[in-house]
Amino acid sequence: MIHDLTLSDVLAEHARSRPLKTAAVDGGTRLTYPRLDERVSRLSDALAARGVAAGERVVWLGQNSHAVLELLLACSRLGAICCPANWRQSADELRFVLTDLAPRVVVWEHSETAAALAGGPVTVPGGWDAGPRAVGAAAREPDAEGATPLWVRAGEEYEELVAGGAVREFPQVADTEPVLALYTAAFGGRPCAALLSNAALVAHSGALLAVRRMEPDFTFLSSGPLFHVGTMMFCLATLQIGGTNVFTPAFDPQEVCRLIEAEKVTQAFLFGQMIDALVAANADRRYDLSSLRFVSHSPAWDEMITVDDSPWCRSSMGGYGQTEVAGMLTFLGLAPGAAGPAGRPSPFTQVRILDPDGAEVPQGEVGEICARGKSLFSGYFARPDLNASKSLYGWHHTGDLGRREPDGTITFVGPRLRLIKSGNENVYPAEVERVLKTHPAVADAAVIGVPDRRWRQAVKAIVALRPGATATSADLTAHAGAHLAGYKRPRHVEFADAIPRKGPAPDYDALDAAHGGGGYPGAPVTGSPAD
Amino acid sequence: MIHDLTLSDVLAEHARSRPLKTAAVDGGTRLTYPRLDERVSRLSDALAARGVAAGERVVWLGQNSHAVLELLLACSRLGAICCPANWRQSADELRFVLTDLAPRVVVWEHSETAAALAGGPVTVPGGWDAGPRAVGAAAREPDAEGATPLWVRAGEEYEELVAGGAVREFPQVADTEPVLALYTAAFGGRPCAALLSNAALVAHSGALLAVRRMEPDFTFLSSGPLFHVGTMMFCLATLQIGGTNVFTPAFDPQEVCRLIEAEKVTQAFLFGQMIDALVAANADRRYDLSSLRFVSHSPAWDEMITVDDSPWCRSSMGGYGQTEVAGMLTFLGLAPGAAGPAGRPSPFTQVRILDPDGAEVPQGEVGEICARGKSLFSGYFARPDLNASKSLYGWHHTGDLGRREPDGTITFVGPRLRLIKSGNENVYPAEVERVLKTHPAVADAAVIGVPDRRWRQAVKAIVALRPGATATSADLTAHAGAHLAGYKRPRHVEFADAIPRKGPAPDYDALDAAHGGGGYPGAPVTGSPAD
Repeated sequence: MIHDLTLSDVLAEHARSRPLKTAAVDGGTRLTYPRLDERVSRLSDALAARGVAAGERVVWLGQNSHAVLELLLACSRLGAICCPANWRQSADELRFVLTDLAPRVVVWEHSETAAALAGGPVTVPGGWDAGPRAVGAAAREPDAEGATPLWVRAGEEYEELVAGGAVREFPQVADTEPVLALYTAAFGGRPCAALLSNAALVAHSGALLAVRRMEPDFTFLSSGPLFHVGTMMFCLATLQIGGTNVFTPAFDPQEVCRLIEAEKVTQAFLFGQMIDALVAANADRRYDLSSLRFVSHSPAWDEMITVDDSPWCRSSMGGYGQTEVAGMLTFLGLAPGAAGPAGRPSPFTQVRILDPDGAEVPQGEVGEICARGKSLFSGYFARPDLNASKSLYGWHHTGDLGRREPDGTITFVGPRLRLIKSGNENVYPAEVERVLKTHPAVADAAVIGVPDRRWRQAVKAIVALRPGATATSADLTAHAGAHLAGYKRPRHVEFADAIPRKGPAPDYDALDAAHGGGGYPGAPVTGSPAD
Repeated sequence: MIHDLTLSDVLAEHARSRPLKTAAVDGGTRLTYPRLDERVSRLSDALAARGVAAGERVVWLGQNSHAVLELLLACSRLGAICCPANWRQSADELRFVLTDLAPRVVVWEHSETAAALAGGPVTVPGGWDAGPRAVGAAAREPDAEGATPLWVRAGEEYEELVAGGAVREFPQVADTEPVLALYTAAFGGRPCAALLSNAALVAHSGALLAVRRMEPDFTFLSSGPLFHVGTMMFCLATLQIGGTNVFTPAFDPQEVCRLIEAEKVTQAFLFGQMIDALVAANADRRYDLSSLRFVSHSPAWDEMITVDDSPWCRSSMGGYGQTEVAGMLTFLGLAPGAAGPAGRPSPFTQVRILDPDGAEVPQGEVGEICARGKSLFSGYFARPDLNASKSLYGWHHTGDLGRREPDGTITFVGPRLRLIKSGNENVYPAEVERVLKTHPAVADAAVIGVPDRRWRQAVKAIVALRPGATATSADLTAHAGAHLAGYKRPRHVEFADAIPRKGPAPDYDALDAAHGGGGYPGAPVTGSPAD
């Protein structure tokens, strides 16, 4: 017990050691650490009264908000699990997540999320079956079996929930308990929720603090989505060091510029496209962005911000990571001038490049990147078989290929199984193929990535129609769009008589060669913009 | 298993990710990480063959050496415990340590240590009873009960031991296993071995890396003794980040200057007196000390080195710590401009100021500094009762008093029980009193600290002689000196008819008032040099 340190414990300490510090800023809401701690205590009490016991799930269905952090911290206090769900998902995908996790409480927002949910009924175990608006109004308490989630609308309803809870002590939670669930890894056709424990998140934050030189004056702007580990990991490291988290619902260039100036933001989740948009939004230099310490990008950008060109640049994203390691497994910042672009492992992890039998491959040879260490995940929620296969020989198998260079640094070669990278999003071919094959005209389908200068890759579907059936390219993209997040929808469709196969899987190499596939993770970015 | 990360695992990773990097420098010995890993593997195999199983103890009895790090890492690989013993101790004290720990193997050095050991026979459970030289030559294997330690002389014998071991795989050790034992806390009259687990040491290193901005280019010189956590913690953080550890047997100003220049040392364990000695040794500016990044001290010093005046200065020792928290519990570097000179807790710990009933005292009031977190120790070796009392209410009780300031920072007020600080060493009055009372002429004795400008405090004994007995001040200091390390020997002796008592303990406040006591930890440094 003396050695446990949960996210909730981190907050409780900051409430004492940083009584005056601003913990969270979100629109008109400004919370000091003691105020955040008090709200988390009330929320924990309120959630506990609604059946959120240890191991139960709570889902956030909305854009970025301080409520995400509050729900996560309350789950930590209770030993429960918080899942910020991807609001860019289709109603079909959201329905899957809710069925999979069977949460006790869903906090939802009237925004893009509500529009998606309105697209169809959502079913969860226990028989609830209605649009969320209706349920939000009518069925606010779990039923006798506790299977029906309580739907709480963000904003007023959420505030009522918080206000109704008491400030009280909670028993110490073991920090090995999972606290955060992030959906990823849809290799099997459906995504899986990676479970991250308090201890793993604390250790990962420790690595970020050390490698990125994050100090207590750090102010982080969640300009990327918190349902992704890339943004969440910085939010949590900022919490760990007692900095300030600034939340903005989604990326709006004008608003991001305004927030950087107003809150003296040190760092935000930004990459190429987003930076260009900020430069355009601030073309008249209306906003002072000099508090932002970031990598060099373009002359205009470099003039607006404070360029950090140290080898341990706070904003250099060089390295290799995935949700299953809580963010980053290796950092280029630990290996300036490295031969391997992924750099070296975090101080709290070990990496081995293994062959399929679990033996280490010699330096310079390609094998699967495998890992151990303090920041590793606790497996996927309710996927025992997958978990067993991912942790063979006592090492987490990342599903990615890599090699050790002569200087000991690591090169990420590419996914062991197929993965398309569009924008900053992972698209798993199996997931898109599964949806395409539900169209009545489709006999078989395969999905590849084609190079795209703007989004890195665009999704292309190769479709074999049933004999006598007809469907246009537009029919199929509309069908996919109705069941999948926009970024997973094929931008291009080509028809073929049959899909070449290698055993049960499509022969992706042959498909790439025949249909212009390329630009996969591990390869350089090329191509022209898709649209 | 996937989440375990021992010190041995850290080394095994560096051997792969930093194949060319120098891990350790010690006189003519230079070891890369792969070479160090290989030697640790051989040493582990050799120790295992000599009965060092999980939980067994290995003692290093000598000055600083790369062998200390090797023994510690080999113990980590085996799940065993390494104790670098204080070579400044008297033969009597060393005998106590060996009896207390009952080690399987003692690696000893012919230096000050040997001189101390030659002062009297050393007894360990199992009946071994002879000077170490004789044993070193005659009794190299443990007896059937395994109670007799194997004595290995540092240098050639140690190298033979290493060379005789095989390079092989070892089963994964749980990182919650203790790996380092450091003697401290002699409140009861005898010191206790604080046990630090792999996980605690890794977490503490993480805090140092983050707060002190230690990067992979960090080169640390062990210019303080490795049997103290103050030096050991930097040695281990340097290992954690894959930097270079430079060892020097003990503090020799000329040699330290030479090493700083030759190895481009980033930081060393240095404080006031030591810095003055370096400035004197380098008065002719023969050595280039500019690689050293350190706090400002004096104009001459500031010209020689690179002064680090950032709030997160790498060498600022501001904060509060103790062996039982693996080093530092709080850092001033986390709270520039803080009201409380101890700053704020490490990102991996929690602090509460508790009253004797375990309730938190209000801000601004004094209570005992209590802690939880990843870097806390695992209790004292073989002290179940003491361990229970130190971990009351689920919090480690540091034995020190402190308070929270309005800005949430922490002020260290002083030890809850009496402690004298002489030089950088802790002197526990009970320990000195116990020895004084073994003198036949002494009826009762009490020990206080008197202010001393050079050493902070000097030890003063107030002694009541038996009726009719005689003993001079010189008799008593000689007696104490024969049984205690030099820094614990009273510099001053005063005689009194009786020792005032408050219950069973001496009335220290009355003794301080009557005999000039003062300058205790928590108070400013005053007084004139003792000698």
